[in-house]
Amino acid sequence: MAKSEKKLLRALAGETQKVPPIWLMRQAGRHLPEYRELRAQEKNFLDFCYNPELAVQATLQPVERYGMDGAILFSDILVIPHALGQKVWFAEGEGPKLEPLRTTQDLEKLDAGPLHEHLQPVYETVQQLSGALPEGAALIGFAGAPWTVATYMIEGGASRDYRNARGWAYRRPDEFQRLMDLLIQATADYLIAQVERGAEAVQLFDSWAGVLPPAQFRQWSIRPIREITQRLKEKFPDIPVIGFPRGAGLLYEEFARETSVDCVSIDGNIAPGWARDNLQTQCCVQGNLDNLVLIEGGDLLDAETNQILQALIGGPFIFNLGHGILPETPPEHVERLVRRVRAGTPL
Amino acid sequence: MAKSEKKLLRALAGETQKVPPIWLMRQAGRHLPEYRELRAQEKNFLDFCYNPELAVQATLQPVERYGMDGAILFSDILVIPHALGQKVWFAEGEGPKLEPLRTTQDLEKLDAGPLHEHLQPVYETVQQLSGALPEGAALIGFAGAPWTVATYMIEGGASRDYRNARGWAYRRPDEFQRLMDLLIQATADYLIAQVERGAEAVQLFDSWAGVLPPAQFRQWSIRPIREITQRLKEKFPDIPVIGFPRGAGLLYEEFARETSVDCVSIDGNIAPGWARDNLQTQCCVQGNLDNLVLIEGGDLLDAETNQILQALIGGPFIFNLGHGILPETPPEHVERLVRRVRAGTPL
Repeated sequence: MAKSEKKLLRALAGETQKVPPIWLMRQAGRHLPEYRELRAQEKNFLDFCYNPELAVQATLQPVERYGMDGAILFSDILVIPHALGQKVWFAEGEGPKLEPLRTTQDLEKLDAGPLHEHLQPVYETVQQLSGALPEGAALIGFAGAPWTVATYMIEGGASRDYRNARGWAYRRPDEFQRLMDLLIQATADYLIAQVERGAEAVQLFDSWAGVLPPAQFRQWSIRPIREITQRLKEKFPDIPVIGFPRGAGLLYEEFARETSVDCVSIDGNIAPGWARDNLQTQCCVQGNLDNLVLIEGGDLLDAETNQILQALIGGPFIFNLGHGILPETPPEHVERLVRRVRAGTPL
Repeated sequence: MAKSEKKLLRALAGETQKVPPIWLMRQAGRHLPEYRELRAQEKNFLDFCYNPELAVQATLQPVERYGMDGAILFSDILVIPHALGQKVWFAEGEGPKLEPLRTTQDLEKLDAGPLHEHLQPVYETVQQLSGALPEGAALIGFAGAPWTVATYMIEGGASRDYRNARGWAYRRPDEFQRLMDLLIQATADYLIAQVERGAEAVQLFDSWAGVLPPAQFRQWSIRPIREITQRLKEKFPDIPVIGFPRGAGLLYEEFARETSVDCVSIDGNIAPGWARDNLQTQCCVQGNLDNLVLIEGGDLLDAETNQILQALIGGPFIFNLGHGILPETPPEHVERLVRRVRAGTPL
């Protein structure tokens, strides 16, 4: 199939389609029994990400099972700090851990020199995927947005309020900017390399954008994402970029306008009708089924799916969740969702 | 001083003042050395809340130290589940813990019968405070909003995404509504009793409103707060109500309009200029300095304070934080803030 015929890429190019493309954030992963089986072969999560054979299989599993229109590279946003020399590990059931950056000296130890060498296995995965995808599925590369990655680097993992990262940005903004510049450069280089190997679109996940007050949101979410998008488009003018500033609330509209991304992914707090009126006028919209509704299934799932379709089907649109799929999600519910979306919009 | 002359009550009545009233959420508490000393007398946090002598002193400490325009009752939102018969305790450094409600049977064990008897010491505190406040300071009663209190009751403490509570509301909405009705009734009764003892305004804290998608936000945040406000005003038509739907984002405007509260407290994600244009046209606005800025202090504190003042001083306004004061906050920074606010608006 010609690239231009893939539904996901047509939506990203601004086309309105009667039946929208669908894929789900974190579709490859623990909710799939075949993934849990695959993971048994490599318990270390980062080593799993760096194993092209396994990462290719994990990427393909949901595409093969559900016939998704998008295949998102199986990897993790923390491969970038890892590639910059930070210690990163995944503690079973606890989420990611990093040796936290807290001082100027900690920052100075980061080194972008070995970036591409370190990430070579990820590039190899992208390359293999590029020739292995089912017809019609588009290959989506991704990276964490600099603010979100910086929070993990500074807090040493997930946090409730990201106080150390936000405090650093207030206290020593120039130094924080240097960290952000490093991440902007590394992330742009990383995404360019993914596109060179065959990624057909890329998504930037700014999962913790929502903790930033407006001025900081402009500085640490919008600006870095705009810069990365620009650098990527200087090299590949046609590569579509999806931005996901989770929790941006009132700032979603400004994010869409100022970053010049081709698509904004909306979280569960955004009313689809509002997104139609304020975002879809500017770009493609992706989202935003509640991942808890997907766990519940049944009539609730159908009703919520219909509401989203009715609101957003009149413009460029990609069906997705408002947040990553949860491990407890029954695969039959995902099948039901895909059937509902493919059946066309209810009146 | 006549009630009608207190700055805080004048703002809540819709008056624009050249120098706005100021108080800070969680102003009584761990950031004050005199509070830490007081707490040494009673290590059990709930017993501290139920001790009128200690709770009165804790309430008065920040008012005496800083000359705040508002004195908020020292208590906790979890006294309501506790009064309904749920097991509640505070583990040192871990936050509140509750024996979680998970089944219909768990719900049926809740009993509003002993509510007032259980909360008698809190009412006694309010009564004593009513005669003990420095001239000019208004006494603010408070309660948690039903949604937020329900999340603690169901999750058994703080959570990241409140999945059990949100899942219950999706799965068995009628049952969840019964829990909410119980909380609406208990909360209204509790606030009415506070007003009877001398509270001059009340605030409803919906700290976890931000995890609700729009339809659920309407159902579980706006509706319960509107009902409580109505019941309160049936009895005391002039009592001002402040609503704080933290994280409401795009739904702040609808919250202000639909709940009919006299004042909305805005969190740090809301641009003060947006609040001026969209909320202050409807009611008084309270907020919204970043509590991390208060920790940093210095020029940053002055600049951020000035920005908020400039945006909101042209209408009814109460200076406050966007979220509770943090224990690490230096009292001198609070003093600096109060001086800055009292010095009048910069041009």
